Amino acid sequence: MNRKFECFIGCDKEYECADIVLFGAPFDGTTSYRPGTRFAGKAIRSESNGIETYSPYQGKDLSEFPIFDGGDLELPFGNTKRVLSEIEKYTDRILTDNKLPVMIGGEHLVTLGAVRAAIKKYPGLHIIQFDAHADLRDDFLGEKFSHATVMRRIWDISGDKKIYQFGIRSGDGYEFEFAKSHTIMHKFSLEGLKNIDAGLNSEPVYFSLDLDVLDPSVLPGTGTPEAGGIQFCELLQAVLSLKKFNIIGCDINELSPGYDQSGVSTAVACKILRELLIVLGTKVNTNRPRTWGRTESSHPPQ
Amino acid sequence: MNRKFECFIGCDKEYECADIVLFGAPFDGTTSYRPGTRFAGKAIRSESNGIETYSPYQGKDLSEFPIFDGGDLELPFGNTKRVLSEIEKYTDRILTDNKLPVMIGGEHLVTLGAVRAAIKKYPGLHIIQFDAHADLRDDFLGEKFSHATVMRRIWDISGDKKIYQFGIRSGDGYEFEFAKSHTIMHKFSLEGLKNIDAGLNSEPVYFSLDLDVLDPSVLPGTGTPEAGGIQFCELLQAVLSLKKFNIIGCDINELSPGYDQSGVSTAVACKILRELLIVLGTKVNTNRPRTWGRTESSHPPQ
Amino acid sequence: MNRKFECFIGCDKEYECADIVLFGAPFDGTTSYRPGTRFAGKAIRSESNGIETYSPYQGKDLSEFPIFDGGDLELPFGNTKRVLSEIEKYTDRILTDNKLPVMIGGEHLVTLGAVRAAIKKYPGLHIIQFDAHADLRDDFLGEKFSHATVMRRIWDISGDKKIYQFGIRSGDGYEFEFAKSHTIMHKFSLEGLKNIDAGLNSEPVYFSLDLDVLDPSVLPGTGTPEAGGIQFCELLQAVLSLKKFNIIGCDINELSPGYDQSGVSTAVACKILRELLIVLGTKVNTNRPRTWGRTESSHPPQ
Amino acid sequence: MNRKFECFIGCDKEYECADIVLFGAPFDGTTSYRPGTRFAGKAIRSESNGIETYSPYQGKDLSEFPIFDGGDLELPFGNTKRVLSEIEKYTDRILTDNKLPVMIGGEHLVTLGAVRAAIKKYPGLHIIQFDAHADLRDDFLGEKFSHATVMRRIWDISGDKKIYQFGIRSGDGYEFEFAKSHTIMHKFSLEGLKNIDAGLNSEPVYFSLDLDVLDPSVLPGTGTPEAGGIQFCELLQAVLSLKKFNIIGCDINELSPGYDQSGVSTAVACKILRELLIVLGTKVNTNRPRTWGRTESSHPPQ
Amino acid sequence: MNRKFECFIGCDKEYECADIVLFGAPFDGTTSYRPGTRFAGKAIRSESNGIETYSPYQGKDLSEFPIFDGGDLELPFGNTKRVLSEIEKYTDRILTDNKLPVMIGGEHLVTLGAVRAAIKKYPGLHIIQFDAHADLRDDFLGEKFSHATVMRRIWDISGDKKIYQFGIRSGDGYEFEFAKSHTIMHKFSLEGLKNIDAGLNSEPVYFSLDLDVLDPSVLPGTGTPEAGGIQFCELLQAVLSLKKFNIIGCDINELSPGYDQSGVSTAVACKILRELLIVLGTKVNTNRPRTWGRTESSHPPQ
Amino acid sequence: MNRKFECFIGCDKEYECADIVLFGAPFDGTTSYRPGTRFAGKAIRSESNGIETYSPYQGKDLSEFPIFDGGDLELPFGNTKRVLSEIEKYTDRILTDNKLPVMIGGEHLVTLGAVRAAIKKYPGLHIIQFDAHADLRDDFLGEKFSHATVMRRIWDISGDKKIYQFGIRSGDGYEFEFAKSHTIMHKFSLEGLKNIDAGLNSEPVYFSLDLDVLDPSVLPGTGTPEAGGIQFCELLQAVLSLKKFNIIGCDINELSPGYDQSGVSTAVACKILRELLIVLGTKVNTNRPRTWGRTESSHPPQ
Repeated sequence: MNRKFECFIGCDKEYECADIVLFGAPFDGTTSYRPGTRFAGKAIRSESNGIETYSPYQGKDLSEFPIFDGGDLELPFGNTKRVLSEIEKYTDRILTDNKLPVMIGGEHLVTLGAVRAAIKKYPGLHIIQFDAHADLRDDFLGEKFSHATVMRRIWDISGDKKIYQFGIRSGDGYEFEFAKSHTIMHKFSLEGLKNIDAGLNSEPVYFSLDLDVLDPSVLPGTGTPEAGGIQFCELLQAVLSLKKFNIIGCDINELSPGYDQSGVSTAVACKILRELLIVLGTKVNTNRPRTWGRTESSHPPQ
Repeated sequence: MNRKFECFIGCDKEYECADIVLFGAPFDGTTSYRPGTRFAGKAIRSESNGIETYSPYQGKDLSEFPIFDGGDLELPFGNTKRVLSEIEKYTDRILTDNKLPVMIGGEHLVTLGAVRAAIKKYPGLHIIQFDAHADLRDDFLGEKFSHATVMRRIWDISGDKKIYQFGIRSGDGYEFEFAKSHTIMHKFSLEGLKNIDAGLNSEPVYFSLDLDVLDPSVLPGTGTPEAGGIQFCELLQAVLSLKKFNIIGCDINELSPGYDQSGVSTAVACKILRELLIVLGTKVNTNRPRTWGRTESSHPPQ
Repeated sequence: MNRKFECFIGCDKEYECADIVLFGAPFDGTTSYRPGTRFAGKAIRSESNGIETYSPYQGKDLSEFPIFDGGDLELPFGNTKRVLSEIEKYTDRILTDNKLPVMIGGEHLVTLGAVRAAIKKYPGLHIIQFDAHADLRDDFLGEKFSHATVMRRIWDISGDKKIYQFGIRSGDGYEFEFAKSHTIMHKFSLEGLKNIDAGLNSEPVYFSLDLDVLDPSVLPGTGTPEAGGIQFCELLQAVLSLKKFNIIGCDINELSPGYDQSGVSTAVACKILRELLIVLGTKVNTNRPRTWGRTESSHPPQ
Repeated sequence: MNRKFECFIGCDKEYECADIVLFGAPFDGTTSYRPGTRFAGKAIRSESNGIETYSPYQGKDLSEFPIFDGGDLELPFGNTKRVLSEIEKYTDRILTDNKLPVMIGGEHLVTLGAVRAAIKKYPGLHIIQFDAHADLRDDFLGEKFSHATVMRRIWDISGDKKIYQFGIRSGDGYEFEFAKSHTIMHKFSLEGLKNIDAGLNSEPVYFSLDLDVLDPSVLPGTGTPEAGGIQFCELLQAVLSLKKFNIIGCDINELSPGYDQSGVSTAVACKILRELLIVLGTKVNTNRPRTWGRTESSHPPQ
Repeated sequence: MNRKFECFIGCDKEYECADIVLFGAPFDGTTSYRPGTRFAGKAIRSESNGIETYSPYQGKDLSEFPIFDGGDLELPFGNTKRVLSEIEKYTDRILTDNKLPVMIGGEHLVTLGAVRAAIKKYPGLHIIQFDAHADLRDDFLGEKFSHATVMRRIWDISGDKKIYQFGIRSGDGYEFEFAKSHTIMHKFSLEGLKNIDAGLNSEPVYFSLDLDVLDPSVLPGTGTPEAGGIQFCELLQAVLSLKKFNIIGCDINELSPGYDQSGVSTAVACKILRELLIVLGTKVNTNRPRTWGRTESSHPPQ
Repeated sequence: MNRKFECFIGCDKEYECADIVLFGAPFDGTTSYRPGTRFAGKAIRSESNGIETYSPYQGKDLSEFPIFDGGDLELPFGNTKRVLSEIEKYTDRILTDNKLPVMIGGEHLVTLGAVRAAIKKYPGLHIIQFDAHADLRDDFLGEKFSHATVMRRIWDISGDKKIYQFGIRSGDGYEFEFAKSHTIMHKFSLEGLKNIDAGLNSEPVYFSLDLDVLDPSVLPGTGTPEAGGIQFCELLQAVLSLKKFNIIGCDINELSPGYDQSGVSTAVACKILRELLIVLGTKVNTNRPRTWGRTESSHPPQ
């Protein structure tokens, strides 16, 4: 008899033949308000059985793409630096193996670990961030590393005008001031995304999706819900439009499943992740045509 | 002293003088993912006290219509065939008595029982389905009777192009393929409803409302929430527009009240049911003018 | 060592130098359906730490305005008349001290206490009400004082055509009939607000925000959720537009935090309250320019 | 077709032939801390379907006793005096018809209404109270009528040494002082109940069961949970031992079902109520032998 | 990179070298009241990470025993007969391979499938049942196969006086009557277990643990909570005492994790399961000494 | 008008005249399983209004003792070392001012900060720990500082046989082995406490109460519930018996209020804390008689 293994629905291919590697970074150690994002990876995998692998939006089936789900990393709670370094190391390996990393947070700070790895390989890296919060503080209660400072830390290594921020509707006055000179911020909506393809579409881009960009009515299960966000269909359209960019890595973060006992927030995250993976899988497939077959063991878990 | 009896608000008339008969089919035995729709009828009746009988949308009061609420059927858990047969039998009696059946599910499979009865009386029956899911699988884990196959089973008896599907945004690739030749499917929205009156409005129509057609932000309390659905006002407008059809029976299903502890999902279901009943009551009243009076016992329960 | 004190984020100024006085009226004694609004003040203060003091919509920071938060009144449960009289007395004092009262309910009936005080000072007072429910019943189960009769009781003292009602989508037939002759009712939306500035903008206005005007998907945490409401952004725009009126007092009521375990409803209330306070603070500042300084003790609580 | 009616399981006899009349008093208007007991009657009736009518402890079946369930009274929220007067009136009628009233609260204050009626018929009435709280305050925040003063108000009309208090483990110092001279208080447990039969067993006794006498682990669903209470089996034994007393009326109060989402608290209340009703039914049957038959309509609701 | 696999903590050995095979039977299709036991297997595996593998009660570590966790069976919802047959088939194979089956329900009816397989191999099989409910009805709402009839169906094949029932505190009068002649029933507690070793300890015994035998304060997460149950330590002692019997198969059922949002019920089930597995593992080890080694892949999942 | 301040009920005295200083350490950064203890201090203060200040167990009133509640410390999430150092610093100051520190956790690791300060002042310090878990690991996932290693870290500074552990029922084999030589461990219950007074009662003792020593039925609101714990009354008796020791500091930790939506866990913590404070207050009063008066500002918050 075989053992059951855990994966996001349809992402049951072997590492070796995978183009895309999904993994979880269950860390919420700097969360200032309500922790719980550490459970997101587990919840997303488990609840993914409630959706289909087929996307009627893209007319494609997720199970047709070579994706490996490596499960959640085992991270040392209470040691922020080691956490970031383990994420960096894991992402590094995926990139070195010429695969595309897709990380499930965890709080937003986990993005820093992945971007550090990405920027080593792609020094001119651009970052597209969908988020309710600017995350541009220089420190939070004296700490440099926090989910409230993550974009500032990324700016430290990416430099000016490399971070494209969309949907931002919360921050202190200094963050909005900082954004004027140092990032490219589109407040309140994702509208501006349409107009940035020209410059970016040949550049390597890291995409970071903080799910609290969604209106809390759509995704109540997050640590710092911020009213006035975007609807699901706006996010879906934006994610579908990402195919015009050269995404080399991405993450989806800040789902805190325990705050939404209906399970809807997790279902929303699953559906967006499916669409994102199909977008990425299609692109990868087109860019790097190569042969691969479903392996013997590539059947969905029973 | 009188006993209190249970009914949906305002639906307190005697069976004999009723034009419309409301009843519950508390079955969730084939639900693949999260059961609980069995509690919908009870919850809807109980929470209906939180809304008014008057509709400001239609300028009419539900309590003015002769509607009998027969409560929930007592169904044998664990025996799907007997369940369907009891629903069929009960619907049959209502139709034989020239009344209009309105069933509260239960999972979507209960529709099959009611449609079997309806199609006996109206052999050319059309079905209008609002739903997030196509429900067109031929079997589910080897079972022919399931809430994931219900529309396929109805197609078995209705034949091609009799099922009008709206709002569909989930299914496997084969279901969408099947729909192309055998049903009339409008994906993602209810928009298409506007354009189908010409052909249908003299034909007998059964209307089946799977509440998960609503966006999960509006109705989180359902077994398989599917992001990207319609808003309440779109559903309300669509329900109001049903007056142009010759509805001979209908149901409202897949509310699973336990998954939404705020009670909002049940409140949404109550309001839609009130509007639907007033639409039907008005139509019936117009079509078959006849005398009836509020009976002695028709006061609302204290 | 100093004691910690409780206040809405940024509202930490001393009473003496404050232009605006925030206070809670934790009463839900006439709530017919689901009680719990008594906990709103406490929840709003506590959860306000989850939002920023800075508004990116208005480009201003709440902490710059001289606002005192007096905490919740201590009200005698079970004695509706004494409750109303204590609210009136407290509001009276604030108005006498030439400050602007902002009350956090409690159920909607608390508005009556505040309006009684306001109408003594401003006899021709107009009232702007955002609400899902007309609240125009003459009595409820024989009781004259209830959250279902509050606007009728206010009409008793304000007279005809002084109450502007927006967003109303629930009531019995008599209430809608009554509104035709006695109030100015805009059903379903806040649209009509745009067109009433001409007549009202020099008159004293009391603004009462029943949060159930919001769609229950946005604010599930309320006692009588009523589907078909407005979205957050519509409410935000309307609140921002209030700056054209001469608001002399206001309240925000019917949040029942316990019905929304995600905390989102409270977060929504916090954000709207922040925006409302900045609107009021800006106006007061403009109208009555005067010197004030942050007092020694005006630092935010640690 | 017949309408479904609502009753506690097995209590489906007609009023006329009933020995015992069950009814609900859904009032929580003076609850100082967490309201919600108004929903107890409804919850108890609904969840009673989860238990059997047969008691293996007493070897008898509840459905064999002539008990009528009159449902919940309709009480005017916000008017404490009218509420008490309506409870008194209803209890009065039951007693006048020589039936035994069994009331489901609501908060503990409802007991005052019932005792007022009982003491008119039985002037030397004794009261047995199981409770975590002494309820002997003279006023609460200035109000004489409150669930924290109810036993003091009953003492006003019963006089000294008529109230037997068991399980008390909370109160202020003055209440415990008051009890020394005016009531018979057994702190912390129900142990003392064994020793009081001699004096009381021919006297008329009203029994009031505040469910918070139970440990909160057994019954978390109550407004003011008080650690250190009794276990279920101790309460069960005590209730079974009540058969030695001449109980002429009783109530079970302070269940607040919404605070226990597992439903266990309500299930506990249902089981105790079943046992209590069988104790009372057996006693009544023995004391007043008379003919009665199950009426035509006495079948349990489907 | 390796895939993560799912198992109960410490039960990560290969099937081939395992003495004990753990598997889930996620079926709740005949549950009359509140479904949800289908989620028990998944919850138990997931939450088992919250406990240790080491038992301070037995001084042994679960990870030292050769146990394979086969995950949940995939069962066809809505078809009770096929469900029972698949459980029987799977149990059959385990027994044929001379391993000891340990099943995680699901509702109690799943026991019938496993006992059918066991009784084929061990025709004189005895059954020890810990349960709050007798489960001896002949039918439930006309259905022969139900979690309320399971012990009656087992009696059909085991014959008289083979079923030892402990802790029973609910049933109708006929069930208790039936038990007198046909089973060996110990009401209310597990006390009697001490006295039955003499006769049974060389006979093959199947042990079925319905977790609702526990008091609902200990395990609120079950479909039909029944007050007056046993405490955790009584159950633990009873489970430890099972080592005197010749257990050839067992199950643990009726955990419904969704009804206990604290997660405590699942934690209780995990701990009892750990102790039970160590008892069984120790016995098997003693009875059938043989060599086995931890396989290469026997490390706990990361 | 005065501002409301936040404190545990009855602990409203000024710092200067206080004998005891209560404060919160809202840290849960190393929690391996389910975070949330950071909210304990806030919840305990807020819910303390649901209990009385008077103890019927001790016949004393908490409000009579000079206790200052300093609120929650502001701790830097994500930096475990700084957190411990801030706790140490704050405790240090309290001890230096000759007051007794009582800390509300937070996770159990916070005890290390307080003990570091205490051991500086009292080098031969003994520690009494009530806990379900041994907390004696040397590291957890490679981290030395964790709530699973806290007692090991304390042992690093206290040396052998200074830590008295009671109620321990979980740990790995190595921890139990370690305890044999290095601590004094009483497994499963608090029984042994009776016998240790002789040696300890003149020595300085730090008391650390991990609330998960309670059975999860009593306190479900904790991160790692461990079945088989002690009942409330056992804990209460043990706390009352602490008066024989020379307690110089203490803490109460691991309440995670969000996991128990009934609020019962917090109510249990409040009651134990009240009793503990009265025990400590009585002792301090006796040991160090001195004059103090209720200050002007010592009225309870309104």
